[in-house]
Amino acid sequence: MTQIQTLPASLAGVVAGIARCDGRYTAEAKRHLDSLTKPIGSLGRLETVAAQMFSIFSGNVPLPLRRAVYVFAADHGVTQEGVSAYPREVTAQMVRNFLAGGAAINVLARLHHAELTVVDVGVDAEFEDAPGLSRMKVRRGSRNMLREPALTHEELAAAIGSGIRLAEGARDKGQHLVAVGEMGIGNTTAASAISAMLTKRQIAEVTGCGAGLDMVGRNRKLHVIRRSLKRHFGASMETPDPLEILRCVGGLEIAAMTGFILSAAANRMAVVCDGFISTAAAAVAHAIEPEVGGYLFAGHCSEEPGHRHLLRHIGLTPILNLGMRLGEGTGAVLAMPLIESSVRLFAEMATFSSAGVSAASA
Amino acid sequence: MTQIQTLPASLAGVVAGIARCDGRYTAEAKRHLDSLTKPIGSLGRLETVAAQMFSIFSGNVPLPLRRAVYVFAADHGVTQEGVSAYPREVTAQMVRNFLAGGAAINVLARLHHAELTVVDVGVDAEFEDAPGLSRMKVRRGSRNMLREPALTHEELAAAIGSGIRLAEGARDKGQHLVAVGEMGIGNTTAASAISAMLTKRQIAEVTGCGAGLDMVGRNRKLHVIRRSLKRHFGASMETPDPLEILRCVGGLEIAAMTGFILSAAANRMAVVCDGFISTAAAAVAHAIEPEVGGYLFAGHCSEEPGHRHLLRHIGLTPILNLGMRLGEGTGAVLAMPLIESSVRLFAEMATFSSAGVSAASA
Repeated sequence: MTQIQTLPASLAGVVAGIARCDGRYTAEAKRHLDSLTKPIGSLGRLETVAAQMFSIFSGNVPLPLRRAVYVFAADHGVTQEGVSAYPREVTAQMVRNFLAGGAAINVLARLHHAELTVVDVGVDAEFEDAPGLSRMKVRRGSRNMLREPALTHEELAAAIGSGIRLAEGARDKGQHLVAVGEMGIGNTTAASAISAMLTKRQIAEVTGCGAGLDMVGRNRKLHVIRRSLKRHFGASMETPDPLEILRCVGGLEIAAMTGFILSAAANRMAVVCDGFISTAAAAVAHAIEPEVGGYLFAGHCSEEPGHRHLLRHIGLTPILNLGMRLGEGTGAVLAMPLIESSVRLFAEMATFSSAGVSAASA
Repeated sequence: MTQIQTLPASLAGVVAGIARCDGRYTAEAKRHLDSLTKPIGSLGRLETVAAQMFSIFSGNVPLPLRRAVYVFAADHGVTQEGVSAYPREVTAQMVRNFLAGGAAINVLARLHHAELTVVDVGVDAEFEDAPGLSRMKVRRGSRNMLREPALTHEELAAAIGSGIRLAEGARDKGQHLVAVGEMGIGNTTAASAISAMLTKRQIAEVTGCGAGLDMVGRNRKLHVIRRSLKRHFGASMETPDPLEILRCVGGLEIAAMTGFILSAAANRMAVVCDGFISTAAAAVAHAIEPEVGGYLFAGHCSEEPGHRHLLRHIGLTPILNLGMRLGEGTGAVLAMPLIESSVRLFAEMATFSSAGVSAASA
């Protein structure tokens, strides 16, 4: 396993609190699923989802599931290098769109009854207090990874700490199923850099066009990532400390999501990752503590090419494959009705014996 | 196109009433989608679903969508040949399970607000009147396709007519989004026979293990299908009339679903197919009138191997891929929150200009 040298004290406590999801519950879930009035295994993926939920909640899944989505927003210094099709101002503009209720995630959160919290952990703009906004700004954007580490040690710890506090708040609100999404112009560059380091794949394999780069733009992005990784990690073949990867080439929202995911697992919530960037945060969390995987669902597989590699790397199978690449938590919230369906089927279906249905002869 | 020689008068009227989904609306939908605050195309499949809904409802999609699911149940004479892992009685037992609320489709219909109607179009048992049950029995099961045509001309017309009347009732109830599911021990044998005829694929390619046959059982099933097709259609290379395929090797619930799908399209409802058997009915409907395709969604892709071939044959891309193979309309109802999501995003998202968000530079 990777050596974690720089775990801050607050994070060490969180990580120590992540209990292993007990295989005993998975076996019990399988027995129950096989007693329900359906051919064995015929609910497919919903059966594995139901079993994982049964395990996360130690055999006592609360119903209805209280759902929430946290959208972490921050700017990225690397946008100075022309790595995004959209100007940097769009991060703040989209935060205002979230607060006004007009973005895709607002529509989906309303329809699927997920309480939406927008987290300003590093947007390059000032916001007034507003319902649904958590003001936790560490800095008005990360630094330019091409020139210096994206975050200082203190900024990294502060951003991770914001995520930890938010997950503790989610627990206090009684939330059970929490989606993690993000908004940040430039953040696919950070996620690609993290992915290349963690998965050891070629940069080109884990780097796409983000929100809409053309081929010239994508080549520039590849070049910026290559030079940034070389600057911070040189030619070392050893995978560095995941927190050091996060600090040097990550971003404030990615760090906050990492803290949130670890803390949500420590507080026994089911966490739904969204697309490439939130999964990069999950991959950092997974590198710190692999047991976090038992609490994670992949809402969907994004069109952004690095996403499938990251998912495979941490062992997650996406629930949806809709060719989406929007972020904001949209793919995660769309998977929530399916996750709840699996739990309801598990809890509410009749058994062969209770319904008087004959079993198969085979 | 296949010659349809035997279209009964009632069905001819329905088919004539199916209006072509207008491409004008698809283009208008695309323009609107591209104005919303998201990168172009970033909602992936949800954008094509939204555009299709816009087209089905001629630019005026009703919200909320009134959802319903119709589960067509019937027995099959071919079960005499040992083609199913479950005994024939299970069809009636599962209908009782539906009426008692304990089956998978009950759980999903409740959770996703789809009004459930169970249709007895040919179960080998008698049922009392019950809420949610439509009693439209044509015969206590189809005939054994290995020995004679599964249905007489009169039985076929009666079963199709039941489906037509149910869809008219759905229209009268103001339903907009209707799922088609089924229950019938032995019906994957009928669906495989239909699929082999319509897609011209090898029988083995479109025949699976149904609800749980072992390899010996599957070989028996292949043999029964091969002999049945030879009996009814000989070595003719021409595709016979789709209604004659339905009559000789189909079944009562498949015929009723065919009538339902055609009539639902004629009445401008959006129809969600479920798994292999309901899609076989959709394929017969499509062979009769290809314009029905504009009204169809494939809720999911089943594990039953013939399903993907049928979907490709009629040009449908499944919304979900969850490895399910249960039937009952379960995969179709699970797709409904996604279909509604696409429509809500289309209707409720802010545009770049209304939200004051900068556009991409590319």
